[in-house]
Amino acid sequence: MLNVSIIGIGQTGVKEYWDTSIRHLAWYAIEAALDDAHISSVDALYVGNMLAGELSNQKHLGALVADFAGQRGIEAVTVEAADASGGAAMRQAVLAVQSGLVKTALAVGVEKMTDETGTPVTAALSTGLDADYELEQGLTMAGMGALIMRRYMYEYGLDVADFAGFSVNAHANGADNPLAMFRNRLKAERFAAAPQIATPVSLFDAAPGGDGAASVIVTSRERAMDMVPQPVRVVGSAIATDTLGLHDRKNILWLTAAEQSAKKAMEQAGVMPDDIDLFELHDSFTVMAALSLEAAGFAEPGEGWKLARDEEIGRDGRIPISTFGGLKARGNPAGATGVYQIVEVCRQLRGEAEACQIADAKVGMAQNLGSSGATAVTHVLMRDS
Amino acid sequence: MLNVSIIGIGQTGVKEYWDTSIRHLAWYAIEAALDDAHISSVDALYVGNMLAGELSNQKHLGALVADFAGQRGIEAVTVEAADASGGAAMRQAVLAVQSGLVKTALAVGVEKMTDETGTPVTAALSTGLDADYELEQGLTMAGMGALIMRRYMYEYGLDVADFAGFSVNAHANGADNPLAMFRNRLKAERFAAAPQIATPVSLFDAAPGGDGAASVIVTSRERAMDMVPQPVRVVGSAIATDTLGLHDRKNILWLTAAEQSAKKAMEQAGVMPDDIDLFELHDSFTVMAALSLEAAGFAEPGEGWKLARDEEIGRDGRIPISTFGGLKARGNPAGATGVYQIVEVCRQLRGEAEACQIADAKVGMAQNLGSSGATAVTHVLMRDS
Repeated sequence: MLNVSIIGIGQTGVKEYWDTSIRHLAWYAIEAALDDAHISSVDALYVGNMLAGELSNQKHLGALVADFAGQRGIEAVTVEAADASGGAAMRQAVLAVQSGLVKTALAVGVEKMTDETGTPVTAALSTGLDADYELEQGLTMAGMGALIMRRYMYEYGLDVADFAGFSVNAHANGADNPLAMFRNRLKAERFAAAPQIATPVSLFDAAPGGDGAASVIVTSRERAMDMVPQPVRVVGSAIATDTLGLHDRKNILWLTAAEQSAKKAMEQAGVMPDDIDLFELHDSFTVMAALSLEAAGFAEPGEGWKLARDEEIGRDGRIPISTFGGLKARGNPAGATGVYQIVEVCRQLRGEAEACQIADAKVGMAQNLGSSGATAVTHVLMRDS
Repeated sequence: MLNVSIIGIGQTGVKEYWDTSIRHLAWYAIEAALDDAHISSVDALYVGNMLAGELSNQKHLGALVADFAGQRGIEAVTVEAADASGGAAMRQAVLAVQSGLVKTALAVGVEKMTDETGTPVTAALSTGLDADYELEQGLTMAGMGALIMRRYMYEYGLDVADFAGFSVNAHANGADNPLAMFRNRLKAERFAAAPQIATPVSLFDAAPGGDGAASVIVTSRERAMDMVPQPVRVVGSAIATDTLGLHDRKNILWLTAAEQSAKKAMEQAGVMPDDIDLFELHDSFTVMAALSLEAAGFAEPGEGWKLARDEEIGRDGRIPISTFGGLKARGNPAGATGVYQIVEVCRQLRGEAEACQIADAKVGMAQNLGSSGATAVTHVLMRDS
C-alpha cells in the first residue's frame, strides 16, 4: 500500500511567455507549491520535460531548476517519456518517498514551446514517435492522431462531427479557468467547420502547445497529516508502456498501456471506474479522449465518443473529464501536462476548483500519455478525511 | 539501510557503431544483463541517455527500448542529467526496488554519438551547460574543462605535464580491456606534446565520445541471494547537485556536489575512503579526475594530481581508478557512462575483471558527474559474501 500524500501544488497559467525563460517558469510553479505546503525546501526534485534540449538548448534541468528555485544541492534529475514526462516525474517522486530514502519530493513539469532557438516545434515533438520507422516517413504527432482518428471513424462509422462533444466540453471548462490558454466557448457547428491540420484532425481536435509549469510536493502520509489541513493521498500509481510505432500494434484503437496502467493503479487504490469522480485524461486529440475512456473502463470499445455525445463528460455527467479545460483548452505544454493533471485533480479533491468545481469529489484519476499512448502514467488520488 | 543488490550486468564495447541503431545498442546490453542474471524479464526499466533527441531524432526511449528488448509493456522512462544520466538511471532503479513497488529493475545507459542526423555533437553536448549564460557565450564542454584546468594550474603552480599520470594510467588499463575504445598505451612524453583542443586541455586530457550501452539489474537483497551466486550489494546511493554555471560557484576547484554525494553514499554504506578498494570516477578531463579524488576525500585540496604523479591510482596503488580505462580510454558515451562505471565495479567485486582485476576488491565506489559536476551521482557497492 502506498504511503504517499500530496502537501503542495502550484502552477502557472498556460500561454505564450515570450519574456520568461524555462528556469523562471519552473521556479514560479515550485514557489507556489512550496508556499502552498508552507515549507521552504524539499529533498529531491524530479523535472518532467520533453523539449528543452531541442527548443532552448538546455538539458540538465535538474541541477539548473533546483538551484534557481532556491534548492541548490538537492538530488535532482529530469525524467522524460515524451508528452508523458510530467506524469513520469510524478511517478519518480512517489517512488522516492515510498522508498523511505527521500522525505519530501517535488515533481515539476515544465515546457517552453513558443520560443524556438533551434529545431522547429513540430520536428522536436516528432522525436516522441519512432524515429526509424515513423519520423523517417514524415509522420508528425498530428499525423499520428489523424491515422488513429481515421481508423476509429472507419471502424465505427462516424463523422468528424461526432467528436465535437470533447472539444465543446473542454472549452466550456476552460472558459471558467483563469489559467487556461483558451477561454473561449466553442459551439459544435464551429467545430465541424474548423480548418484541417492533418485530415481528419482539425484545429479543434488537436490540443495546442503552450508554455507553462506545474508542481506537486509529496511526502509520507503521516508527515502530511501533521503538515497541512487537506492532504491528498496518492492511492494508485502506475506506468505501463506499449510499442512506440503504431505499425507494431495489433489494434491501433486499443490503448493497451493506458488500460494496463489504469487497471494497476485502480487495483492498488482498491477502486473501480464507478468510484471515480473525475478523470483528467490525455485529450491531445479528441479521438485520444475517446480511446482513454474506453481503455480505462468507462466505455465499451468503440463507444467512448458516445459519452461526449450524451454529455456524460461534463461537470454533472457520469464521468467528468478535462475539468479545467484539459489539454485542448487549458493548453498542452508537452512535458508539463502530466503534472498539471495532478494539480487539477488535487484542486477538485480539496474543493478549491472554484468555477470549475465538481460536486463532492472524493476520488480522482489522472492519466498522462506519451505520443500514441506508448507510455501511460496513471495516478489515483483520494481525499484524506 | 538499502536492501538492493545487483544480479546482472551487461555491456557492449565502446566504439563507433556506424551500422547499429540506438535501440540495438541498448538491446545488446540488456540481453547480456538478463543472461547474466539468468532471467528473461524485469518489472521496470530506466534508460540513461543524454543525446538521442538531438543526434538520432529519438526521444521516448523508455517505451522503445523496453519493447525492442523483449520487455513490451513494462514501466519504462528515460532519466537525464547530462553526462550523469547513466548514474541517475541507476539511482532510479535503486529507489524503485527500495520502494518495494518494483521487484526487479533494470538501468541501461545508452548513447550513440558518432552518427549525427541533426545537431552537431559538440553543440548537443553543450546543452549540459547553462544555455543562457555559458552556451550563449560559446562555451563548450571542452572549454569548460579548460577553464577549470587553467585555474587549477594557476592556483597550484602546475604545468600541463603534471596531469599526464591520469591519462597514462587510463590507457594502461584500457589496453587490457577488450571492450575499451582505445587500447594503446600512452607515454608521458607523448601526453605533453599532444595537440590542444581547448588550451590547456589537450587531446589526451579529454575523454573521447563514443557509442555504447551498459546495463545493470537490481532486486532486493533476499531475492538476489536466491538468484545468483555472487550478488553485489548496493550499500550507498546518492545524488547531489550544484550550480549549473561555473560563474555561480565560489570556488570552481571544489566539486561540492561530488563531495556531498560521496559523503552521503559512504555514510549510508558505513565506510570511509580508506575502506574503498577502487573508485570509478568521472575522468572526462584529467583535471576532473584530480578534483574528484579531492572531493571524495582521497586527497587534500590541490593535491589530487599528486596521486597520479606518485602512481597511487594504478591497480596496485592506494586508490585504483579507471580500472578498465575510465572515460579516457574505455570511452565516454555520455549518458551511458554512469552505468559502465557500475558494471566495472561489479566485475572487480566479482573477481571477473580478467586482465584488469585488482587484488581482493571488496568495496568499490562509482561516481558519475554531469558537466562540471553540477550533478554528481555516487554509488558504493560491496561484495556480499
